Amino acid sequence: MSDTNPAADPANPATPANPAPRGGPPGRLMAAETAEQPAVLRRILTEGAPQIRETAERIAARAPRFVLLTARGTSDNAALYAKYLLEILLGRPCGMTSMSTTTAYGARQDLTDCLVIAVSQSGGSPDLVASTRAAREAGAVTLAVTNNAGSPLAAAAEFHIDVLAGPERALPATKTYTAELLALYLLVDGLRGGDGTAAKVLPDLAETVLARRDEVRRLAARYRFAERMVLTSRGYGYPTAREAALKLMETSYIPALAYSGADLLHGPLAMVDNVSPVIAVVPEGKGGEALRPVLDRLRDRGADLVVVGPGAEVARASAGFVLPTGELPEELQPVLEILPLQLLAYEVTIARGQDPDAPRALAKVTETR
Amino acid sequence: MSDTNPAADPANPATPANPAPRGGPPGRLMAAETAEQPAVLRRILTEGAPQIRETAERIAARAPRFVLLTARGTSDNAALYAKYLLEILLGRPCGMTSMSTTTAYGARQDLTDCLVIAVSQSGGSPDLVASTRAAREAGAVTLAVTNNAGSPLAAAAEFHIDVLAGPERALPATKTYTAELLALYLLVDGLRGGDGTAAKVLPDLAETVLARRDEVRRLAARYRFAERMVLTSRGYGYPTAREAALKLMETSYIPALAYSGADLLHGPLAMVDNVSPVIAVVPEGKGGEALRPVLDRLRDRGADLVVVGPGAEVARASAGFVLPTGELPEELQPVLEILPLQLLAYEVTIARGQDPDAPRALAKVTETR
Repeated sequence: MSDTNPAADPANPATPANPAPRGGPPGRLMAAETAEQPAVLRRILTEGAPQIRETAERIAARAPRFVLLTARGTSDNAALYAKYLLEILLGRPCGMTSMSTTTAYGARQDLTDCLVIAVSQSGGSPDLVASTRAAREAGAVTLAVTNNAGSPLAAAAEFHIDVLAGPERALPATKTYTAELLALYLLVDGLRGGDGTAAKVLPDLAETVLARRDEVRRLAARYRFAERMVLTSRGYGYPTAREAALKLMETSYIPALAYSGADLLHGPLAMVDNVSPVIAVVPEGKGGEALRPVLDRLRDRGADLVVVGPGAEVARASAGFVLPTGELPEELQPVLEILPLQLLAYEVTIARGQDPDAPRALAKVTETR
Repeated sequence: MSDTNPAADPANPATPANPAPRGGPPGRLMAAETAEQPAVLRRILTEGAPQIRETAERIAARAPRFVLLTARGTSDNAALYAKYLLEILLGRPCGMTSMSTTTAYGARQDLTDCLVIAVSQSGGSPDLVASTRAAREAGAVTLAVTNNAGSPLAAAAEFHIDVLAGPERALPATKTYTAELLALYLLVDGLRGGDGTAAKVLPDLAETVLARRDEVRRLAARYRFAERMVLTSRGYGYPTAREAALKLMETSYIPALAYSGADLLHGPLAMVDNVSPVIAVVPEGKGGEALRPVLDRLRDRGADLVVVGPGAEVARASAGFVLPTGELPEELQPVLEILPLQLLAYEVTIARGQDPDAPRALAKVTETR
């Protein structure tokens, strides 16, 4: 059934046991969509940015005081990134919505002065649509950020931003995640009157990172037989840790637990020992500084610690992947940080003889209500 | 070192390998503190309730429009419960704070019209104290909910509620969790002008549940060799699923992943198969109804499904624990739901030859900054 053209993925000459969906080698779709990311980022910066800036200006004119973010799965991690941006760069108090309070319990809130941002790749999840409609009726300024301008969610919200990632066919989301991150950055930068200049280096940097697949494949070898993994970070890197855990779980089925460094010390550290490898996402900046005591504690315990971050931190770890962050502001680093971890999820899954394109039991549009 | 008096814990005549701290059989402290919960709940309802009601009246007079909740570890799960109460019963938009935005990045927010609630057993964590001070300076009404009226956090906040649980010495928090839940319920009920009458049955019901340790021990046998566990719920039961996962991890070190039922369908379901047992917390009410399609899906996949909830749902599962919720409103069920799961964490840990009182690497007051 599969392997009709193993040579189509030059990165993976191996021939794992599981068949790929819709022909082609396992992981073909995920590999292709991961590789598209520099082009998608470029498209957002050129074609998308003017509309995002205009939307930001119109929203800023409404002067929202409180921001609620609503999403699920990978998009929830992008929404969490936006929460950090909004709190740190704009000083706006934010919350992630507990969707069931509206959809299951019918809570009716006064959302005057609130901006509600719904993030969704497909824009098709019925509970997101319902909760966005309810928010609009409750007086909120509503914004949908989706990869489908024709979606019900885009229609339900007052404003819409298209992340322009093109069709995503692999079940594990990759390019729509980084597209959502960049679109949300441009939105928040626009809300503070910025023009997104700092983001212009991202496509080239992303290309550099994605070209280093061989390094990631060497890292992947250590997780081939892992029974569990712990991911940690702080600040802007924390959404990356959560998204990497989700990606690893939904492709390789390894239980991967993500904690902010502070939360890790409040309990789950009991679980980390020399059979629980840890991946730390270390931002170059204040988040990385706040993470340092956690890294020291992990090293003291003899944890197998892989770092994605600055060279100095990688050098002090068991292994790692040095991110070419250079002068990139900390708030933009998440767009790069996730890339080696997407590659890692892919490579670990291939090494375990599974197909990254076809996780069990998942549909691309999940119809939660 | 240990087992000087194995008979002191009649529930556990077995003598596991690990030594208990401070003498006595393994898990002695956790078992004693778990058993104290009916008495603590009674104390809150009699001694604590009048002060909580008065605090609620004073806060209601300030008419906060948004609520931010801030906590870590077990207290973070209690805070999440309060978020559901505040959104559903009071219609107030809420957010959980990302503490590092204040403590690491120095974000300064305008918190006029905001109520900031910090929940902490010890009231001693420096980052909670710092972020509460910052919130107060930023114009928020601040409330600390702690088990230590003399703590720095109690002093930093404008208002304080003492959860009156008495000293907690076991590292896994048990009685302070349910004490926080009940205190937060009485607060929110007070904010809407209620007098907490519905909660008066809780101490007796808690006693009934805790007397059924033998049932829990039989359930624990199936997890003795588990390599991972998944916990799920929706609505009011979701904080219970998260707290149960934390409890299982910090005592038994089994990687336990908690998902809202909706999020489970958005990715991690790929990880659930017949070697990943699932525990579902099924509220009797709208949360349980919203969870039903997830339970169906899990049954379709042949998952080993243990239900904590109504008899009808337990009957359709692989096994379970029937909660005597009777006429108890759904919003109060979390105070009962966690009890069999605390017992389960204890029993699974004992069955694995470990000591529930002494998780590796944990200190009772975690000094995150």
